[in-house]
Amino acid sequence: MTRTLKIVVAYDGTRFVGWQRQPEGLSVQALLEEGLSRLEGRPVTVTGAGRTDAGVHALGQVASVRLNHPISTADLARALNAMLPPDVRVLAVEEAGEGFHARYSAREKTYRYLLACGEPPGPFEWRYAWHVPYSLSVERMAAAARSVEGEHDFSAFRSAGSATATSRRRVSQSSLAPVTFREAFGWAVYPEHRVAGAQLLCYEVTGNGFLRHMVRAIVGSLVEVGSGRREPEWFEELLRPADRAEAGPTAPACGLFLVGVGY
Amino acid sequence: MTRTLKIVVAYDGTRFVGWQRQPEGLSVQALLEEGLSRLEGRPVTVTGAGRTDAGVHALGQVASVRLNHPISTADLARALNAMLPPDVRVLAVEEAGEGFHARYSAREKTYRYLLACGEPPGPFEWRYAWHVPYSLSVERMAAAARSVEGEHDFSAFRSAGSATATSRRRVSQSSLAPVTFREAFGWAVYPEHRVAGAQLLCYEVTGNGFLRHMVRAIVGSLVEVGSGRREPEWFEELLRPADRAEAGPTAPACGLFLVGVGY
Repeated sequence: MTRTLKIVVAYDGTRFVGWQRQPEGLSVQALLEEGLSRLEGRPVTVTGAGRTDAGVHALGQVASVRLNHPISTADLARALNAMLPPDVRVLAVEEAGEGFHARYSAREKTYRYLLACGEPPGPFEWRYAWHVPYSLSVERMAAAARSVEGEHDFSAFRSAGSATATSRRRVSQSSLAPVTFREAFGWAVYPEHRVAGAQLLCYEVTGNGFLRHMVRAIVGSLVEVGSGRREPEWFEELLRPADRAEAGPTAPACGLFLVGVGY
Repeated sequence: MTRTLKIVVAYDGTRFVGWQRQPEGLSVQALLEEGLSRLEGRPVTVTGAGRTDAGVHALGQVASVRLNHPISTADLARALNAMLPPDVRVLAVEEAGEGFHARYSAREKTYRYLLACGEPPGPFEWRYAWHVPYSLSVERMAAAARSVEGEHDFSAFRSAGSATATSRRRVSQSSLAPVTFREAFGWAVYPEHRVAGAQLLCYEVTGNGFLRHMVRAIVGSLVEVGSGRREPEWFEELLRPADRAEAGPTAPACGLFLVGVGY
């Protein structure tokens, strides 16, 4: 009997070429497929909800797979974790309906992007935030972030090589706020002393779909507004049909997290 | 005019051979000396408060150095951070009295040790906690941890190669308590889902001095008591003059943090 399983995975993207299997380099998909194929005794294909790029992290990536093996979901989680390297962890395995497909069944996704402004972030945080070595106007960025909410044509924020038919997406939540390093990264690895002038900003966005590099292009454009290099009106123009060249640069992968997927 | 400076440093110990310069491999001391020597134009020696071993982390290591260069303390912090790799950060530079010596002037040090019990820790935490793949009795461990407080002969917890004259040390605070992953490591990198059965324990100890591997040998012995392999009475016996062979194994370096140094 073939079963369809939903697998929730977290990973530190630092050393991966991304979610998707590539001709060269280590991918999270390949690691999961290797573990599942060994168990199943035949090659198995895993589908991810979002194809996170090289260096992008995930707290709740979702994968679907069809298996014949009768192993319990709890034992499967344990077996996979025993095979996976420590920077990839299976958080949950659940039985799903036959029609479940991690990507096509996804109703919405939430991403988070962390920016460390001013002084560089600490030794335990630098892998998980983009260091912008100057201060930014939180008010200007927060207002621009809010304007992303709603349904827009995001063609200005789509990557050059992107091949999706439409660039219209609905964003239900888009907000930017300052957070403390201690709240965000915990007290366990938080130094008592800290060079003054380091600030952490958190951008969060939920939508029914995201174009390739869309979140990173939004963040890169928010920084243009926050730095004063561009006016808020420029940002709002980008939410109308536009060329990618008009938006700000793509923010680096290290600050981006796929937080979760809603079905 | 020669000045004496106090430098507070944090580092992720994962890829270092430790604080102290070694014939082979990268040390934090060598990185700081390289930066300071370049600035000073002659070889400079840096003294650390505690010689953290390979893989041990620091949130507030303190180093002292004598410099002739008139650079301001704020500029020196910035200049060093521009030269250092991202896993080492100078948190503060202060002018100190001529007699200040990071090691000899230290009044007390605080260490923290994190243990992840049961299910393995997440992809963002595994570098910073010892994974013990079974559950532990927190009550037994907490009671044993408290018994470390006071002045004792810690010879049972000293490393074989240790050369200090006396093994008597005074511990002013020693406690173990469960903590949540979210509190300890922050919500920024915390997955919503988590495989049930993972527990985080935090051991903290403050004392006027620590023998080589002492904290890790205490933690290794606490785990013997928490697992039920040894009785609490066995642990208390270790606080009387004893051989290292009598205590539990040395816990791995990755869970240990030098939190701070008091002067």
